[in-house]
Amino acid sequence: MPTQEHMKAVMQSYIDGFAAGDAAALAALFAEDAVIEDPVGNPEIHGREAIAEFYANAVASGAKLTLDAPIRGSHGSKAAMAFTVEVPGLMRIRAVDTMAFNEEGLVVRMEAFWGPEDIEM
Amino acid sequence: MPTQEHMKAVMQSYIDGFAAGDAAALAALFAEDAVIEDPVGNPEIHGREAIAEFYANAVASGAKLTLDAPIRGSHGSKAAMAFTVEVPGLMRIRAVDTMAFNEEGLVVRMEAFWGPEDIEM
Repeated sequence: MPTQEHMKAVMQSYIDGFAAGDAAALAALFAEDAVIEDPVGNPEIHGREAIAEFYANAVASGAKLTLDAPIRGSHGSKAAMAFTVEVPGLMRIRAVDTMAFNEEGLVVRMEAFWGPEDIEM
Repeated sequence: MPTQEHMKAVMQSYIDGFAAGDAAALAALFAEDAVIEDPVGNPEIHGREAIAEFYANAVASGAKLTLDAPIRGSHGSKAAMAFTVEVPGLMRIRAVDTMAFNEEGLVVRMEAFWGPEDIEM
């Protein structure tokens, strides 16, 4: 099982990847067969290739993430964080992301909780 | 599908239920066959009777919850919130809870993300 420290470091790297505009670094956090559901309720995105494309688009928007509170771990192989996404000149999104990790410490599933009313234009 | 407004109101009622020390009000937010995993990684608790007992113990500890950031919805039937639990004289726990809802607007699954390092004594 990945350590608490490792999972939180990965989630911080996710924040940092957006800060650096580094989509490849973001995609590299995920397992080859990872699944993301962002936002929860939208169709899932399967596999690192599709995930890399998703983050290329996200990074191209100029989105930057700021933690709203310290990253949370668990007693298992999942962690969560509350943050705000700022897309310059466009909108601000309040989100919670949960991530599940595999034995190698890669993210196998990410779910992003944000709804239509969590966006400020 | 439950509305964003409804899901967020239920999560606020969860905070308010602890504030009021009302374990019955907390248990009433859940469906008869609901499951809670609190914390994530611990054995699940199944069914409203066991859930009611869980919250009776939690309320008896004097635990009070304070939101760290606004409650998040989704584009589906799930919502999430980051908050801090204060157990008077004992500890403070930083947590994220996610809740999934059924068509009737009751919680069918709650997962609480907090690990050993998210506790301050």
